[in-house]
Amino acid sequence: MKSKGNVLYGQSGGPTSVINASAYGIITQSLAHRDIIDKIYCCHHGIDGILNDDLIDLSNVEIEKIELLPHTPGAAFGSVRHKLKSFNDDISEYERILNIFKKYNIRFFFYNGGNDSMDTCNKISKFLKSANYQCAVIGVPKTIDNDLPITDHTPGFGSAAKYIATTIAEIGCDAASYGKGRVTIVEIMGRNAGWLAASSKLAEMSGYGPDLIYLPEVTFDLDKFVEDVQKIYTKKSRCLVAVSEGIRDKNGHFISESQMLDAFGHKQMGGVSSYLANIIAGKGMKTRSIELSLLQRAANHLSSMCDINEAIEVGKKSVEVALNGHSDKMITIRRIDSHPYKIVYDETDLALVANAEKTVPSNMISKEQNNVNQEFIEYALPLIQGENKPIFKNGIIQFAIFGK
Amino acid sequence: MKSKGNVLYGQSGGPTSVINASAYGIITQSLAHRDIIDKIYCCHHGIDGILNDDLIDLSNVEIEKIELLPHTPGAAFGSVRHKLKSFNDDISEYERILNIFKKYNIRFFFYNGGNDSMDTCNKISKFLKSANYQCAVIGVPKTIDNDLPITDHTPGFGSAAKYIATTIAEIGCDAASYGKGRVTIVEIMGRNAGWLAASSKLAEMSGYGPDLIYLPEVTFDLDKFVEDVQKIYTKKSRCLVAVSEGIRDKNGHFISESQMLDAFGHKQMGGVSSYLANIIAGKGMKTRSIELSLLQRAANHLSSMCDINEAIEVGKKSVEVALNGHSDKMITIRRIDSHPYKIVYDETDLALVANAEKTVPSNMISKEQNNVNQEFIEYALPLIQGENKPIFKNGIIQFAIFGK
Repeated sequence: MKSKGNVLYGQSGGPTSVINASAYGIITQSLAHRDIIDKIYCCHHGIDGILNDDLIDLSNVEIEKIELLPHTPGAAFGSVRHKLKSFNDDISEYERILNIFKKYNIRFFFYNGGNDSMDTCNKISKFLKSANYQCAVIGVPKTIDNDLPITDHTPGFGSAAKYIATTIAEIGCDAASYGKGRVTIVEIMGRNAGWLAASSKLAEMSGYGPDLIYLPEVTFDLDKFVEDVQKIYTKKSRCLVAVSEGIRDKNGHFISESQMLDAFGHKQMGGVSSYLANIIAGKGMKTRSIELSLLQRAANHLSSMCDINEAIEVGKKSVEVALNGHSDKMITIRRIDSHPYKIVYDETDLALVANAEKTVPSNMISKEQNNVNQEFIEYALPLIQGENKPIFKNGIIQFAIFGK
Repeated sequence: MKSKGNVLYGQSGGPTSVINASAYGIITQSLAHRDIIDKIYCCHHGIDGILNDDLIDLSNVEIEKIELLPHTPGAAFGSVRHKLKSFNDDISEYERILNIFKKYNIRFFFYNGGNDSMDTCNKISKFLKSANYQCAVIGVPKTIDNDLPITDHTPGFGSAAKYIATTIAEIGCDAASYGKGRVTIVEIMGRNAGWLAASSKLAEMSGYGPDLIYLPEVTFDLDKFVEDVQKIYTKKSRCLVAVSEGIRDKNGHFISESQMLDAFGHKQMGGVSSYLANIIAGKGMKTRSIELSLLQRAANHLSSMCDINEAIEVGKKSVEVALNGHSDKMITIRRIDSHPYKIVYDETDLALVANAEKTVPSNMISKEQNNVNQEFIEYALPLIQGENKPIFKNGIIQFAIFGK
């Protein structure tokens, strides 16, 4: 691939606190190949930016702004939740995308997202191929949920895990202030995969870990839960519980669910912790429920350096893979060893990751099924190593702002 | 006061992320006066520790543990919510306290808390005087609510304000990721005083401040609120609202209140944001409600260096005031100037602060009454200057743990 062409980068789905670190990796690596790559465009709001001919041209952007990207939460170029129909059902959006790619001479397309976005990426890749339009299409993984298969873990997870471990430690420390304490129930994101709730376990090493952890991978039994809590409360006069938003009963029904659906038809979760706190309060114990909410994906100031660096490297690797003439691939992280931690960056077929999910394996879950074990700690601990140095000016945190 | 005597230090009420920084100041300053002060004791759970003869003797504690105090959230020595009756009503607890003071030869008593704790402190001081027991009794102020009178501000507020400003900035940045956004309603602590909700204003300087701020100082009108939100949502396709948990309607009723009371008979708040989000959802706008909850007082990792340093200095000043033979005083911070920021430490009579409250003055509230203005920014901005350097070991945050 010696002819000049342009790069297009897009962000999709829920942001992570390091998605812009991958953007940084892609942009800087593209700038290092100005012999092959001419211009760098970013989609303003992912696929919608393409469909609306709304691209951000980075040709004249100040380098200071680029340097702030790894310190910026949210999706700096705008995200989207847009589900492309299959092109057999409706080809019009694909044709529109092709026209925009031709108009801007896009020859390298990087789409940064989770499971659904890899599906979008895969569909676009297949269509461009069928239309004989030469373009490397590379999926750049990101999700706090850590539920993408094949890759050992996903950029975004380590920082969310570090936020959760730190926050649970601080909550646990505060909750231990009173002699007669409460049952504190902390609700953590994760619809089908419990990686995030499991990460609360790491707080244990601060002296204040959760007493109980409930994951979506384990059928939730309300009576057993009450029994577990009562046992600990009797012994310690307090109890700290981490619970995944996605826990389900034996019939597969979410313990607490609303009727709202997102654009992909997934049910919207929320409110499990207050539901469970009410049950526990009914048993005569003082309770407090806390939802970590958006902060899990937005607290860039607590992101892990391991995660930031990997997110950048995954971005750089995407450019290298595309320049090597590969397409229809997602970048993966392959773990070589945990002692000491060693990984390599690799690639896999988009088709293998699109719409697939990786959950917490049973060998990481405690025998009692209300906690995780040493196997999980060995998996997760390397991913939260190193502390970000957020940029503050006059006491205020600073971000890169594009096309707001 | 030349004869040797011992120090007793106690913590009371809801912790702040820097209450242990004041403990650090008191302990280190006491250690610097070993000619006068013999032993340093800490109440295990405040007044309860005295009543239960449960004191922590710091004579043999490792200095590394003391050094970790300013980095430790919660009440490292245990807090309590215990309301002493007036000694005319029930003298028994006071006699018990006197006996313990005699038993441990306590001649310097420092009680670290908010409004209610200053009342406790004042009562104990008066009783000891009436019993002719010589002991300097000094109130050491702390509260995230910033509602103590006379002092310009209270240790604990600056760090909570920095947590809120940073977190609102990160939430605002994340919320701006989508073209068609939501109405995000963030609930912030503050039962009667809106200092904390007002602090969300500081996020504006990151590029992502709240569009609307509602304080308990302003009567809350639901129709006007809906109108305010609709106006902004129409213009920006999103809206970020900061709301104090203590907002009240024109009859003085809390917008959302439960029937639970704390030990002081105060109604327990919570759930305003989800109540308001439901109202807004009913008007056809997508919403998200977030409660910052415990993190506002526990997120030591985001505390402001200005606040940590002042909390330490307030602790040291307490010891100096006691050694000067003063008693029945609370330490205050007096602001000399804001440009540049300059303060001095001072003292005031406990009776003047016990059970009194300082709220946000009207000159800091915007004309529209749904925001705060430049006056507030000039007041609050100096208090969030400087970033804490939390101690991480192997990726995990570290705390000082005493008598757990």
